[in-house]
Amino acid sequence: MTGYDVYELGGLDSWAQAQADAGGKRFVDKEIPTEYVGMSANALEPGGQAPFWHSHDRLEELYVFLAGHGQMGLDDEVVDVRPGTVVRVGPGVMRTWRCTPDSPEPLRWLCVRGGGDTLAAIGRDGQLDRERTMPWA
Amino acid sequence: MTGYDVYELGGLDSWAQAQADAGGKRFVDKEIPTEYVGMSANALEPGGQAPFWHSHDRLEELYVFLAGHGQMGLDDEVVDVRPGTVVRVGPGVMRTWRCTPDSPEPLRWLCVRGGGDTLAAIGRDGQLDRERTMPWA
Repeated sequence: MTGYDVYELGGLDSWAQAQADAGGKRFVDKEIPTEYVGMSANALEPGGQAPFWHSHDRLEELYVFLAGHGQMGLDDEVVDVRPGTVVRVGPGVMRTWRCTPDSPEPLRWLCVRGGGDTLAAIGRDGQLDRERTMPWA
Repeated sequence: MTGYDVYELGGLDSWAQAQADAGGKRFVDKEIPTEYVGMSANALEPGGQAPFWHSHDRLEELYVFLAGHGQMGLDDEVVDVRPGTVVRVGPGVMRTWRCTPDSPEPLRWLCVRGGGDTLAAIGRDGQLDRERTMPWA
């Protein structure tokens, strides 16, 4: 898929939890058609967290934190994240995240994904665990 | 490649042209090993520009502009970019960029890439054109 596409996501300060779904996500690849690389722009208010843990069967994800303070749960570990933290998560690793209650601003980040094939061929490869408690609970 | 990796890129305000190569680039995937998705963090001072045009044979790239004002050359067109502009560029499209001279701050952006295989298998697929003049020249 050659050619190019332009999408105005809005400046970082405008990324708001209210624009997005329950997990604070907006999928850029729903706005412009990407072939191999997917991306979501995300925002959570202080105290907010992902609605569930999830993993991917094939996709590699890069989480690029740009504003606010938060934490990621990665299987049995918890990692603090701040502006500039990049977390690569390979297939099979369960992950979740939150914006810490004392964060000075909303947690804002990009999540980029790809998996060695077109996104269309990979399809929905997510595994959700809605029962697993959050690691900071 | 399962598991996870954490890299501290530094907050957006700390991304500086001086940290990077001549094109203002730092490759996150040289710091943490990614399998499918590559990423660079980029900064250019006002008036700065890419050292050359380039295209890719197989890779799709997403340019995510986060601060400053700039322009991208995309084959025969020029697109203005500002915080929140996302540009998807498919294989074969020649591209270049600059931070406009009157930008209130450095142009800062992420460039994400992937191409339907591991990055290792794709290898170096870039085509440079060091002779083509910049579209704002």
